[in-house]
Amino acid sequence: MIASNVKAIQNNQDSISAKLANLRVMMAKHDLDCYFIPAVDEHFNLSVPAAKQRRAWISGFTGSAGDLLVGKDSAWLFVDSRYYEQAELQVDTGIIQISKLGLEENLSLIETLEKLAESAPKSTKIRFGFDPFTVSTEQYQKWVKKFATAGIELVSIRENLADKVRQTAETLPAIDESPIFSLPASLTGETAAQKLVRVREAMAKANIDVLPISNLNQIAWLFNLRGSDIPNIPIFISYAIVTTDAAFLFTNPERVSLEIKQELSADVTLLPYTDYPSTLVSCVSLPKKVRVLLDSKHSTAGTYQLILDQQKAKNNIEIVFDPNPVEGMKARKNPVEIEQMKSANFKASRAKTLTLMWLTEQVENGNVLTEFDVKETVEGFYQQETDFQSLSFRTIAGAGANSSIVHYGTPSPEITLKPGELLLLDSGSQYLAGTTDDTRTMIVGEPTAQQIEHYTTVLIAHINCAAQQFPKGTTGSQLDAIARAVLWQQQLDYGHGTGHGVGVFLAVHEGPGGISKSVQYPLESGMVTSIEPGYYEPGWGGIRLENLYIVKEMPSKNATVWYGFEPLTYIPFERKLINVDRLSKTQLQWLNNYHASVIEKLAPVLDAATIAWLKKAAAALGKAL
Amino acid sequence: MIASNVKAIQNNQDSISAKLANLRVMMAKHDLDCYFIPAVDEHFNLSVPAAKQRRAWISGFTGSAGDLLVGKDSAWLFVDSRYYEQAELQVDTGIIQISKLGLEENLSLIETLEKLAESAPKSTKIRFGFDPFTVSTEQYQKWVKKFATAGIELVSIRENLADKVRQTAETLPAIDESPIFSLPASLTGETAAQKLVRVREAMAKANIDVLPISNLNQIAWLFNLRGSDIPNIPIFISYAIVTTDAAFLFTNPERVSLEIKQELSADVTLLPYTDYPSTLVSCVSLPKKVRVLLDSKHSTAGTYQLILDQQKAKNNIEIVFDPNPVEGMKARKNPVEIEQMKSANFKASRAKTLTLMWLTEQVENGNVLTEFDVKETVEGFYQQETDFQSLSFRTIAGAGANSSIVHYGTPSPEITLKPGELLLLDSGSQYLAGTTDDTRTMIVGEPTAQQIEHYTTVLIAHINCAAQQFPKGTTGSQLDAIARAVLWQQQLDYGHGTGHGVGVFLAVHEGPGGISKSVQYPLESGMVTSIEPGYYEPGWGGIRLENLYIVKEMPSKNATVWYGFEPLTYIPFERKLINVDRLSKTQLQWLNNYHASVIEKLAPVLDAATIAWLKKAAAALGKAL
Repeated sequence: MIASNVKAIQNNQDSISAKLANLRVMMAKHDLDCYFIPAVDEHFNLSVPAAKQRRAWISGFTGSAGDLLVGKDSAWLFVDSRYYEQAELQVDTGIIQISKLGLEENLSLIETLEKLAESAPKSTKIRFGFDPFTVSTEQYQKWVKKFATAGIELVSIRENLADKVRQTAETLPAIDESPIFSLPASLTGETAAQKLVRVREAMAKANIDVLPISNLNQIAWLFNLRGSDIPNIPIFISYAIVTTDAAFLFTNPERVSLEIKQELSADVTLLPYTDYPSTLVSCVSLPKKVRVLLDSKHSTAGTYQLILDQQKAKNNIEIVFDPNPVEGMKARKNPVEIEQMKSANFKASRAKTLTLMWLTEQVENGNVLTEFDVKETVEGFYQQETDFQSLSFRTIAGAGANSSIVHYGTPSPEITLKPGELLLLDSGSQYLAGTTDDTRTMIVGEPTAQQIEHYTTVLIAHINCAAQQFPKGTTGSQLDAIARAVLWQQQLDYGHGTGHGVGVFLAVHEGPGGISKSVQYPLESGMVTSIEPGYYEPGWGGIRLENLYIVKEMPSKNATVWYGFEPLTYIPFERKLINVDRLSKTQLQWLNNYHASVIEKLAPVLDAATIAWLKKAAAALGKAL
Repeated sequence: MIASNVKAIQNNQDSISAKLANLRVMMAKHDLDCYFIPAVDEHFNLSVPAAKQRRAWISGFTGSAGDLLVGKDSAWLFVDSRYYEQAELQVDTGIIQISKLGLEENLSLIETLEKLAESAPKSTKIRFGFDPFTVSTEQYQKWVKKFATAGIELVSIRENLADKVRQTAETLPAIDESPIFSLPASLTGETAAQKLVRVREAMAKANIDVLPISNLNQIAWLFNLRGSDIPNIPIFISYAIVTTDAAFLFTNPERVSLEIKQELSADVTLLPYTDYPSTLVSCVSLPKKVRVLLDSKHSTAGTYQLILDQQKAKNNIEIVFDPNPVEGMKARKNPVEIEQMKSANFKASRAKTLTLMWLTEQVENGNVLTEFDVKETVEGFYQQETDFQSLSFRTIAGAGANSSIVHYGTPSPEITLKPGELLLLDSGSQYLAGTTDDTRTMIVGEPTAQQIEHYTTVLIAHINCAAQQFPKGTTGSQLDAIARAVLWQQQLDYGHGTGHGVGVFLAVHEGPGGISKSVQYPLESGMVTSIEPGYYEPGWGGIRLENLYIVKEMPSKNATVWYGFEPLTYIPFERKLINVDRLSKTQLQWLNNYHASVIEKLAPVLDAATIAWLKKAAAALGKAL
C-alpha cells in the first residue's frame, strides 16, 4: 500500500509543478513578481464550491483557510495552527514553503512581500498581482495604505490567472450546473417582492440608490431560492444588485426552470453570472447623483474598483461603507420562518433523543460502539424525518480525548466508546425550510467526580445565558460574559463563541448577531441563536451543551422592551453528569421546566418504550435535603 | 426681592443683546451667516475653566453641556433633557431660541444649519463659522462629509470670535494664573523623564514621530504637575507635544516656579500657551517623513488642520488616527500610585464610616437632619484627614425622592430626612496623591419590604461584579452585563455605567477603561475602577452602592492571565436593607469577608465608641435556618 501512495504523491508533485509553471508563464505576461491565490472565492463562503477552489487545485492543500503566494521561483502557503499538520501532509515543501502563522520566523503574507521588496534592486517596486474579486474591500484598503511606501506595487488583474491555468490544463468545472429551486411563501412567510420592498425601504432611509450583493446566503434568502453548489448549505453561485426600481440576479440562467423564471420575472431580471460587472457599471453610471452601499468586510475589492473607476469618470458617485441591510433582515425571522425552525428542530430533537436512548441501551447491554456508529445512528434518525434534505454540517462525534477537539469532524470506526469516557455529539440537519444544530455530551458508563463538576459548570453557564432576560440593545458580547462568568470563577473558559446565528434552511452559522466576545450587534426579536458553552481539556475530554433559541419579546412591566430566549431544541441533558446541589433554586427550576417541556413535546410522537425511557431521563431533579 | 431680580434679569438681557450684537459685527467681517460657540473648550474637559466659558459668558446659560449657534438675526441654544429647565430659567427666549434635543420639532445643530441652507438663495452656500480648536477632529470630519453636498460652507477661523468680543467688552480673565506645583517621585512612583521614556517606547512601536496632547489630565500626569484651574480636578490649562527627542509644555511660564523650571529643564521645554500652533508646525515640518498621532475623538480640528496644512505643503507627513498611548499608561497605576490610592481611600472610608455612625446616632436620638447637614458632616470629616486638598466632585446627598436623581448635587438645608426614607450619599475627596469616590445608601428609621428587596438586588449586582474573576482581554462592556444580570431578571436597570476609571490625584472620571456598555477597552492590571450599580425610581427613591477597586492579577491555575478586584474602599453596607436569604453562599461569604476587612482596617484608627458601633454595623450576617 505504501508504494502506490508514494507514486500518487509523486504524480501529484509533478502535476503541481506543472500548474505552477503554467501560472508563472501567465505571471510573466503581466510582468508580476508574485501572484496571490487566497482560499476564498468571490463570495467569501466558509465552504468554497469545487469550481472556485483555486488554491486547493493549484497547491494540493485542501484546508478551508490558508492563502497561497506564488513567486517567480518560490511559493508560500500561509496557514494558521489548525492546519500546520494538514499542510505538512498535503504540500511538497520542496515546491511550496509552508509558513506557520503564529510561530517564530514564519512570515505572514505582508512580511513575505516586504522581504521580497527589500531584496529587490533599489528604486524598483515588486509587482504583486491578485484577482480583486477574491480580496475584500477592507483587505484591499489596508494593502493600499500599507504598501504606499513599502516598495510594493499592487497589480489588480480582473481575470483569475489560476482559472486560466486550470482551463488550459483541464475542463474547468461548470460554475453552476445544479438546478435552482424556489421556496413558496407558505414556507418563507414573505415573497421575494415583499422582501424587495423592505430592502428598498432600508435603502431609502439611508439614501442608497444601488446595493450590490455578493453574499450567497443573502441572495438565496432575498429571492426565496435555493441550490446545491456547496455541501450542507443550500446556496448557489450568484451575484445580485438591487436598485431603487430594479433587481438583478446573476447566475447561470439555464439552471433556472421556466416556472421560476416566470415567478421572478415581475420583480427580478435574470442575467448570466458574467454580466455582473457590466451591469453594476450601468447601475452607477447615471446622470444623477448615485449612492452605492458597500460592506467593506464582505464586498470584494473587484466590486469596489468597478465603482471607483466610474467615480473617477464622473464625480457624482458616492460610496457608503455600511453593513448590508439584508443581513439583519435575514436574521430577524418572521412568524412563518419561526414555525419552520420549530418544526425542523423538533424533528432534530426527536432524532437526537432517539440516538441518546439507543446509546444508553447499547452501552447498558454491553455492546461496543465506535464514534462512527454514533454518527451513523444520529444521521439515520435525521433521514427518517420528513423533508430531510442534508446534514447542516459534518457530524461531530468525539469519544474520550477526541471530545476535547472542538471541530472533530471525522468520527472513526476504529475508536470505541470506553466506560468512563465522555462522548460529545454535535450534529444538525437541513429540513425543507428549517436548519438545526444541537450538542449533547454523554457519559459512557459511570462518571468521575471531575466529569460531573465540569459538566455541571457548563450546564450552569448554559442555563444562566438561556434564562437571562435583557433589555433591547443588549449585544452578544454582553450575553457571552454572562454565560462565561461561572466558568471564569473557576479559571476555566472555552475558546469559541457562546452562540451563533442560524439561517432558515440556509447556513448553520449566520450573521450579524450571535453571542460572542466580539459581537457588538444587538440581539433582536426573531433572531435564532445557539447557546453552547463548553469546556475542553486536551487528553481529558470536552463538554459542550448546545440548544438553539429564538429571541423573543417578554411581557414588560415598564417602558423598556425586554427580551428572553425560547428554546427550539428539546433534548434531555445527561442527569448522571449533574451535581444538583450546585444549582441555585432558579437554575434548578429552569432545568426541571425544560425537561418537563422535553417530555411534553416529544411524548406524543414517540413509542411507549421511548416515552418510558425519556420520562426517566428527563424526570425532575431535586436537591438532597 | 422680586423687583431687584427683575432688574438683574433686564440688565442681563441688555448685556447679552449687546454681546451678540458685537459678535455679529465680527461675523460680518468674516462674511458669516452663523457662528458656532460650543460648551467645550480647547481641552474638552467636563468642567471648563472660567477663562474658557465662552458659551456661558455670551448666552447666560451655565449648563455643562449645550452648544450655541448665532445667526445674523436669530440664535439657538441646543440642550439635552438634563438642561431643558435650566435653559428656560437662564435664557431669554426672545433673544436665543432653546432647541430641546429629543423633543419633536426641536431641530439639532445640523438640522438648523440645513434649514438655513434651504432658505438661502439657490446656488449660494451659507457660511458656517467656527473656531476649529473647539471642535473635535471626529466632529469636523463628520461635518466635512455631511456638508459636502448640503449647501453649507465650513469656515474655520483660527481665532475665537467670542474671545474677541469678550476682550473688547471687559478684561478677559487670565487663562492661567494660579501656581503650578509638582509632585515628587515618592508620590508618583515615576519621574516625568521616566514617563517620557515609556511614551517614546510606545511611539517607536507604532512608528510615531510627533504626539500632540491637549487633554489636561494626560499632561498633568505625564509631567507630574498639578494646578487649580478647575474646581475638584487639580489640572492646569496647557498643551504638550512629545517628539522622539523633545518634549514641550505650553502654559503660562510665569505660574511655574524657578524650582520646577529647573526640575523640568533637562527633559521638557517650557513655552507660552500661545506657542503651541507654531511649535507643532515646526515639529511636523522636517525634511524626513513624519508620522503624527491624532486621537480623532480628543484632538481638536484646529490641531488636525495645522497638520493638514503642512501635509499639503510637503508630502511626507502621515496622520495616524489612534488613541493616545498616554491615556492607557495613566490608567495602569504603578505600585506607588496604588499605595497612594489605598491611603486616600482609607481616609475617605474612615470619613464616610464616621458619617454613617453620626447619622445613625442622630436619627436614633430623634434629631431632625437635612440633606445639607449630611453633606456638611461628611465634608467636615474629609477635611479632618491629613493632606486634604479639595472634594473630588460636588457631594450628592439626596433624601427620599431626591435619592432617585442620579447626579443630585444640591443637598438642601430645607429638606429633612424622614423616617422610612432612603438617603443616598455619593462623595469623594482629593488627598495629596490620591482621589476617592464612594456611595452608600442608608435607611432613615425602618425600611419597607420593597426597599430591602431593591437594595439587596443592587448589592448582589455589586458583589457579582466585584467578586468576578475574568481573563485578560475582558472588556468593561462584558463586566457591565455581569453586574446588571440580576437586575435584568427583575426587569430593572440603571441608566448609568457600572463603573468608571479614577485618576491618581486627578479626575474622578478617567478613560480609557471603566465598566459600561460601550467600553470595549480591556481592563488591565493596576487600573482603578468604581463598581456602582444602582436602581432609581422617580418619586420612590434611589439606591447606589459604590466602592473603588484595583484590577489585580490573580494566582493562575493555567496558562491564562486571570484578573480580579481588590477593594480600595472599606465602608459597611446597610445591614437593615439586606435580605440575607437572597444571597448565595458565595455572595454571603464575599459580604462577610468584606465586612470583616472593614473592621480590621478601620478599627486601629477609630475610638472605642466608634469601634463598638462598627463591629455591630459590619458584623457577620447569617441565613435564617
